[in-house]
Formats: sequence, structure tokens, C-alpha cells
Amino acid sequence: MPNPSAAMLVIGDEILSGRTRDSNMYHLANELNRHGVDLKEVRVVSDDKDAIVAAVKHLSASFDVVFTSGGIGPTHDDITADSVAEAFELPIDVRDDARALLVKHWESRGVELTEARMRMARIPDGATLIENPVSIAPGFKVANVHVMAGVPAVFEAMVASVLPTITGGQPLMSQTLRIERGEGEIAGPLGALAKEYPDLSIGSYPYQQNGVFGANIVIRGTDGAQIDAAMTKLSDLFPA
Amino acid sequence: MPNPSAAMLVIGDEILSGRTRDSNMYHLANELNRHGVDLKEVRVVSDDKDAIVAAVKHLSASFDVVFTSGGIGPTHDDITADSVAEAFELPIDVRDDARALLVKHWESRGVELTEARMRMARIPDGATLIENPVSIAPGFKVANVHVMAGVPAVFEAMVASVLPTITGGQPLMSQTLRIERGEGEIAGPLGALAKEYPDLSIGSYPYQQNGVFGANIVIRGTDGAQIDAAMTKLSDLFPA
Repeated sequence: MPNPSAAMLVIGDEILSGRTRDSNMYHLANELNRHGVDLKEVRVVSDDKDAIVAAVKHLSASFDVVFTSGGIGPTHDDITADSVAEAFELPIDVRDDARALLVKHWESRGVELTEARMRMARIPDGATLIENPVSIAPGFKVANVHVMAGVPAVFEAMVASVLPTITGGQPLMSQTLRIERGEGEIAGPLGALAKEYPDLSIGSYPYQQNGVFGANIVIRGTDGAQIDAAMTKLSDLFPA
Repeated sequence: MPNPSAAMLVIGDEILSGRTRDSNMYHLANELNRHGVDLKEVRVVSDDKDAIVAAVKHLSASFDVVFTSGGIGPTHDDITADSVAEAFELPIDVRDDARALLVKHWESRGVELTEARMRMARIPDGATLIENPVSIAPGFKVANVHVMAGVPAVFEAMVASVLPTITGGQPLMSQTLRIERGEGEIAGPLGALAKEYPDLSIGSYPYQQNGVFGANIVIRGTDGAQIDAAMTKLSDLFPA
């Protein structure tokens, strides 16, 4: 059985404006890879309701699981929860279970229950809450879409809450060989090797360092013995 | 007149597998921002022809300019040029002008003209070449789509070649105020401020540091005096 497929939707003007360098995509990609889930597409859209609704609909219909990052805080630009509700045509309001979590957490700390803070308890009808051990305000899951926070520490905690609920496949293994030759020299034999091992994915990632061109050749697959065999052939083709 | 809109398409399994942390998106976002072009969406897709063709078609039709990154080298997994040709239903083959650039560069260095290397001269009919001062193999432009390399040093050089050909709008300016209070406390007054300045974009980017929650409030716009005025009000609302 093939591994489940996944997509990620990053919501945030701060990424598109270049203010912030994304780290959630990198984190999720690694966690999914380890868990045997194939991340197939990532989209980054701005804090715009129409854009979020369209992306959620498309990705939810196209992939087994979807993860979103960002836009579920208390401020006016946090519109992810309402957009996801709209995408699934679900009513949304402050929900008692989410409100109870927040009230309990804040009352014990003497934090005022502002109207803005209560926005974080807005959860679409029928959604399952996602635990947030860092700052309590929960994420949620609707259909196959997991809606999570953008702050990396909170996002990462939510990913850890969610991953055990997803049935993964075989973890992808990989081996890398760094070859200090231009890709033009590597390409012919590498293409032949790729044809010889159709079950493996063989990628060539060129680099340039101190004016020297080379490539990292990454062989990926779920069968370790096959990867070993292909890697041995590759090393023989391009001795260091 | 509003600034031109842009989208970016990142092609590469190495990003989706978590092997590589993207840097081209971050670079392009900053360059476009400075140039007065609004980056509205980024998509990351795998080395899969159907996925690339579908994304190129959609983004080209939806935004003023599109930039792609990755998949134009000589190896078997480099399928971007052929995919872009397919998206625009253009013939593609080794083109004389691109071949001449490569031959001149390689002959002077005694590099063998392999069939694989010649793949880098595959350019769709009618496309304009994009200069690559780093490693010569050119990118190209078809309609509003700029096809560029994935190696960061080459990508960045190509962006520098391309940007002067794009008419930008007013550079977006921004000011940031770091407020060491939870977003729940900031949200109410901030929403009111956002309503008072409809021409400005006011974003709240929460952080957590040493267990303390706070937010960076970023006020963006093209009118510096208006940003100054809004920032003064914000500082008065939340004195340090």
C-alpha cells in the first residue's frame, strides 16, 4: 500500500513579505517523512479569506491529510478558523469545550477573559480539538484538515499531538553521496541507474561551493537493501 | 495603481522530504517586497510533471508575474523546462542560442559536451533567455513565467537579472513594535487601530521566548507618514 499523501497550507503575510523565514514547513516535512506520510504539496497564502477557503477546499479534496499553520490567534488578522468553517460550510462560534480549557488556564493565572481572547475558542461545529500543551488555546481537526498555530513552539507541540492519530506507512529511508563533479558529468550514468531501480527515487541536488560545482545524490526508498545495492553501484561509478 | 501581484513555484522533492530547508522563497520574498511587487502565493510541488504543469497554468493565469525555482539542470529528475513547455503547449528542443552559450563556456574550459549537459539548452520555442552569470546555463521566460535554477547562488543571480525587467510599484515600507504582552491583551485596541487606518496592513506575529508570550506588531504600507502616525498611536497604547 502506498504511504498516505499530505499537503500543508501556510497562512501568513509575514512569510510572503519576507519578514519571517518559514520553519514550520521544514519541521513538518521532516516529521511526516519519519512517520511514513508523503508530503506532496505546500501552499503559502496571505491572510485573505477567499485564498484560504479555496486552498483548503482543493487540498482537502486532493490529499489524504492536510495541515495548516498560522492565523488562529486572537487578533483581527487571525481568520483561519472562520475560513476553514466556510470551506466546509460549517457554523462556527465560541464552543463550550474550548472556552472551558481557556477559562481554566487563564483564571488560575489571573488573566482577564477579553472578547479578543475568547476568539481563540471559536471552533467549527463537529470539529475535534487538537491539544496545545504550550499555550492551551487548541487547534482543531475538520474532516482531514488539521488546523494548527503558526508560532513554531506551539505548531511543533500540536504536530506532536496529532501525528500519533495518523496511520503512517513505511518510513522513507535515504542515503546521500556527495560527488564533486558537475551534474553534466553525473547525469548520464545516474539516469541509467534510476532506470535500473524503478522502485527507488534518485535525486540530484547540485551545489556550488568555493567556485566548485558538485551534487548531492540522494537515493530514497522503503527497502534498505535495495538502497544499499544502488548506493554501492553509484560509489563504483564515481569513486572519490 | 496597485502593485503587480506575483506567485512563486518551488519545484523539488528535496524541500518536501525535509532534506533541504528552502532559502529561495525567503530571498525572492524580500527582493520582490523591495521592488514593489506583492508576493501573494507560493506553491511547493514535487518533481512530477502533472503537478508542475497544473501549477504553472493556474499561477500564470492568476497573477501578474510568476517565478519558478528548481529542476532545470541536466539530470533525469530535471523536468521543469519540458513541463513549462507543456503548460503553454509550446515545442521544446535544444535551442541554438542556448547551446552556443554553453559551448562557448565549456570549450574554453575543456569540459566535454555530453548529451546530458545539452539538456540544459532545451528551451521552449519563443521563450526569452534569462542570464546566468554564475554557471552560464540560462533560465528562460515564457509569457509571464520566469523559469530559474534551484541552486541558491544561481537562483539569486537570475533574480537579479530579471528584476530590472519587471515594472514594480511602490515599495512597501514597514515598522515593527515588539510588545511584551499576550496577543489577547493587544487584540482589542489593535483591531480598532486597523479599522482607523484601512490603507495600512497591520499584522500581529506572536512569539514565545523564555516562557513569555508577546507579539511583534508590523505596520505596512506605501505612505511613510501614515505609518509613522499609526506607529505613534500604537506606542501610546502599549508603552514599554
